[in-house]
Amino acid sequence: MQTVIIGSGNVAYHLAKAFVLNRIPLVQIFGRNEQELKNISGELNIPYSKENLMKADLYIICVSDNAVEDVSKNIIINDCLVAHTSGSLPKEILVGNYRKASLYPLQTFSKSKNLDYSKIPFFIEAENNEDYKIIFDIASKISDNVMESTHEKRKYIHLTAVFACNFVNHLFARAKEISDSQKIPFDYFLPLIDETVQKIHEIDPISAQTGPAVRNDKRILHLHEQLLKDENLEIYKTMNHSIQKMYEL
Amino acid sequence: MQTVIIGSGNVAYHLAKAFVLNRIPLVQIFGRNEQELKNISGELNIPYSKENLMKADLYIICVSDNAVEDVSKNIIINDCLVAHTSGSLPKEILVGNYRKASLYPLQTFSKSKNLDYSKIPFFIEAENNEDYKIIFDIASKISDNVMESTHEKRKYIHLTAVFACNFVNHLFARAKEISDSQKIPFDYFLPLIDETVQKIHEIDPISAQTGPAVRNDKRILHLHEQLLKDENLEIYKTMNHSIQKMYEL
Repeated sequence: MQTVIIGSGNVAYHLAKAFVLNRIPLVQIFGRNEQELKNISGELNIPYSKENLMKADLYIICVSDNAVEDVSKNIIINDCLVAHTSGSLPKEILVGNYRKASLYPLQTFSKSKNLDYSKIPFFIEAENNEDYKIIFDIASKISDNVMESTHEKRKYIHLTAVFACNFVNHLFARAKEISDSQKIPFDYFLPLIDETVQKIHEIDPISAQTGPAVRNDKRILHLHEQLLKDENLEIYKTMNHSIQKMYEL
Repeated sequence: MQTVIIGSGNVAYHLAKAFVLNRIPLVQIFGRNEQELKNISGELNIPYSKENLMKADLYIICVSDNAVEDVSKNIIINDCLVAHTSGSLPKEILVGNYRKASLYPLQTFSKSKNLDYSKIPFFIEAENNEDYKIIFDIASKISDNVMESTHEKRKYIHLTAVFACNFVNHLFARAKEISDSQKIPFDYFLPLIDETVQKIHEIDPISAQTGPAVRNDKRILHLHEQLLKDENLEIYKTMNHSIQKMYEL
């Protein structure tokens, strides 16, 4: 099974690394950004190209959602399987006469952060059982957590991840903005943040809710609103409103 | 130094436990809820009362913010130090002729979750150096991280914590609501959530932002809005607007 990874961003890098660490053959990394390709190729010892896409059995497209369609057109052979890694696109977005699949790793990737790939859930789909088995076997060498998922379900998985990861990170960014404005080191908040997350490993987040909104402490809610403005005030009001709706306060 | 803890909730329980574990003398737990007092008293082997507040050198009031003022009136002796544990109240909220202080532990507490008390930041203030030293010495036996904080600064610490802890937990609750609606086990998202938090130990959250809003991926933003309604849609729009403002998109 000859596999090519297309892309040179965070997902491409980590997937290529997961291949190498699990001794899954990878014949090429293909992309546009030569510097990034060189870096990945150098670290992982895999050939790269920005011009000549190698013939392979499996292509895995790891580029941003709005580039998947265009990039897929580079694959002009028919006797191959092509999978994208997007959480929100159908496999039918791929343009070509090859067989189509999707392989969605549910994780947030940064090049500078090492990851335990065995814990990452992979959601996969294919056109038929044989292709499904090809994708399943590869993903199972990387992770203990490989599941089938339709495009419809994958959309909701991605949406849930936006709330639980992207929005959570943005709250950290806004929190840091507030603490920075008062010269309070953001590091002080890390034990609290760790505990907030540790808690939901054991308790349903709906039961774990604390804070002034769920206590309906109007004095503090009012006081906090006086300290905030612009987007931070909007977030404050929206979140409190949502908390009070959820707990019927 | 004879100390009494007033209250029987999560903060009272954990502070009492931190006293016991660090062999700091604690002569009584005083409160209204007899069952909770009995439970704490039984587990930690500390006398309790709901009627006769013992004479002590130091009283630590661990009750919800809107009860602090009233509860403080129970302390009718003058030659003592009284500290509350609220993040948002001034020490002057305490009503009595005793000396006043505050001792704010920055953490989220649940009775069912064990905590490493040595990592909890304690923010303290008092009327004079001697009282400050009394509070500082006790807090330092519990935690490696004890700092002075004025009421003004403490308000912002508490506000930051609301964003970084209470609102983050609510996003988890809303995320779980979405995944539950599609029968997708919320456990699938725990590795992603853990990594989201692990990341900000190493990278500034402003640099760590990922997701459709920061990529300005209008197609996905529009698609997600079709999948959401009510509070979840409001949160989605507010957070994306705030992300796009922060990154000037």
